[in-house]
Amino acid sequence: MNHPSTTGPCGLPLPDLSTAFPGPFPSSPHADTVERHLRQWTDRFDLLPTRDARRALCNITSQGVARALPDADLEGLALCAELFLWLVVFDDVHGEATAAEDPVLLVDRVAESTRVLADDNALAGPHDPVTAALRDLLRRLRTRATPTQYLRLAGHLRDNLAGLVWEAHHLTQPNRVTVQTYCAMRPYTVFVYTLMATAPIVLSYDLSEAQRASPPVRQLETAVANLAGWVNDLASHMREADRLQAAPLSLPTVLMAEHRLSFRQAFETASRMCEEEAAVARELIRELSASSTRRPLALHAAALKCISHSFIWHVDHDRYAVGPSQTVPPHLTTGRPS
Amino acid sequence: MNHPSTTGPCGLPLPDLSTAFPGPFPSSPHADTVERHLRQWTDRFDLLPTRDARRALCNITSQGVARALPDADLEGLALCAELFLWLVVFDDVHGEATAAEDPVLLVDRVAESTRVLADDNALAGPHDPVTAALRDLLRRLRTRATPTQYLRLAGHLRDNLAGLVWEAHHLTQPNRVTVQTYCAMRPYTVFVYTLMATAPIVLSYDLSEAQRASPPVRQLETAVANLAGWVNDLASHMREADRLQAAPLSLPTVLMAEHRLSFRQAFETASRMCEEEAAVARELIRELSASSTRRPLALHAAALKCISHSFIWHVDHDRYAVGPSQTVPPHLTTGRPS
Repeated sequence: MNHPSTTGPCGLPLPDLSTAFPGPFPSSPHADTVERHLRQWTDRFDLLPTRDARRALCNITSQGVARALPDADLEGLALCAELFLWLVVFDDVHGEATAAEDPVLLVDRVAESTRVLADDNALAGPHDPVTAALRDLLRRLRTRATPTQYLRLAGHLRDNLAGLVWEAHHLTQPNRVTVQTYCAMRPYTVFVYTLMATAPIVLSYDLSEAQRASPPVRQLETAVANLAGWVNDLASHMREADRLQAAPLSLPTVLMAEHRLSFRQAFETASRMCEEEAAVARELIRELSASSTRRPLALHAAALKCISHSFIWHVDHDRYAVGPSQTVPPHLTTGRPS
Repeated sequence: MNHPSTTGPCGLPLPDLSTAFPGPFPSSPHADTVERHLRQWTDRFDLLPTRDARRALCNITSQGVARALPDADLEGLALCAELFLWLVVFDDVHGEATAAEDPVLLVDRVAESTRVLADDNALAGPHDPVTAALRDLLRRLRTRATPTQYLRLAGHLRDNLAGLVWEAHHLTQPNRVTVQTYCAMRPYTVFVYTLMATAPIVLSYDLSEAQRASPPVRQLETAVANLAGWVNDLASHMREADRLQAAPLSLPTVLMAEHRLSFRQAFETASRMCEEEAAVARELIRELSASSTRRPLALHAAALKCISHSFIWHVDHDRYAVGPSQTVPPHLTTGRPS
């Protein structure tokens, strides 16, 4: 999506983000080492059922995180990659379609993770591998982060879990979700605030409370959060629709339902929203980077620029590939998806 | 329950906690002022539907919190009372039986509160009065707490919400929940860790990370958390059973199902568990109070002693009164509740 005149599957319009975020995007020299490490980590906890799933997910995660944090040291990059992979695995294994069919199972797994997030030293623990991996991860994150950074990160992880529970309860009737609510919840299910919270831990900077609450920082974080969720929606919509054989809970779906748009109009609107949000983010990054006397602000702006790169980059990965012969399925062409 | 030879409704055995926690329990001189303030606050946000509900809940909350924090100043006590009342109102209005019938509604309200917990300054917000009250409350808590104390408290509030979602998904089949899982989740639904986290904010002390992670502090917090949930279960079981016309999700119910106990045996077991946990808590409070050179530890032990008082006191309130003629309903007398 960082090349002009992009079209997606079925000839649908995709946003051109090359003006706001021109490539090529810098990556970390540790990317391949982290990818090998991730494969070992997922094996150790038996996190992924098949060899192909393991290979694909470790690849996109390590290469994506390498673009999000190109200047991180090896240990920090590996930790961040594990964290992001953990979230994706939790979602793939316990969330989404599995959870829509059996919400109790998801809620039970969220309850286990809640207990580990509340107390990573809890003596008695469940034997779910996903929970065991979280415990391992949190212990190492705690030693690297300041107490405040750790608490903030643990808060974001809880929000991710709440977001997945929310998503699971709306997957079967996505057209009942308003655009406003969807946009407010989407950052939690795409894990972008969590990635933003790992940047200060891994890159060793910290914003003051006043800097964190300042309008340009808040607006930038919101713009990058929206952009991350929406580009993912545009890239994954057809794959999800194909998998679910129904309209997925995504930006095009809620736009269609609320504004009575055609499928193509909804894609066009969503693409335009992405381009606008990218322009807002770009301008705020420029503004904050210029404040060179306030070093943490400039570092944070640079981190958010790279996090944007990472989300823009990841949607071109094979994980989101759809066969060239695929056409728009009939259940997606109405303004009122079922 | 802090008087010997206690029997509960239907002549069921209740724990005798008078050895571990002899009364009378000290209370705050601000209790009545806080009760009047709470009524104004609930009116302002239109939190409670009826005058009677408002009166009863403001009474038990203010008088309970006055025993939890007898040395707090007026502002701190009022803040803590509002916070605890907010949790109970959220549970009464959106959780429990309402949520078991319509989990999506609860999950949507949790999602709204999640967004406010993640960002109490978020511009666009929902119009639910419970969410508006939370936003008001968090803003004032943030000014009183250190950043770390605030983040810790916000984490506990998220855990409370996750606990209520978990509870709602198990209310209709409580006998499927294991005793271990029940005991691990119960502290979140009785909000006791949240009360523990407000004590340092209101009483202006702070444990170091090492003190917080030390075995006696962790063991004391666990014992008080268990005690709080279990005494509430014993006191509210009959009222809940009457309201639901089924076995509630409570300690006696899960004990009956897992250990194939009669209803009376389960009550006896649960009472004994309360007495054992109270003895553990009492001993750890003594041990930590004796460490007078480490002032925060002694203050924390004193706070946890008063929090125990508060939970032991509250179960004798009219809120848990059951008519004297009530007998054990037939659906509760089997070892396998439906």
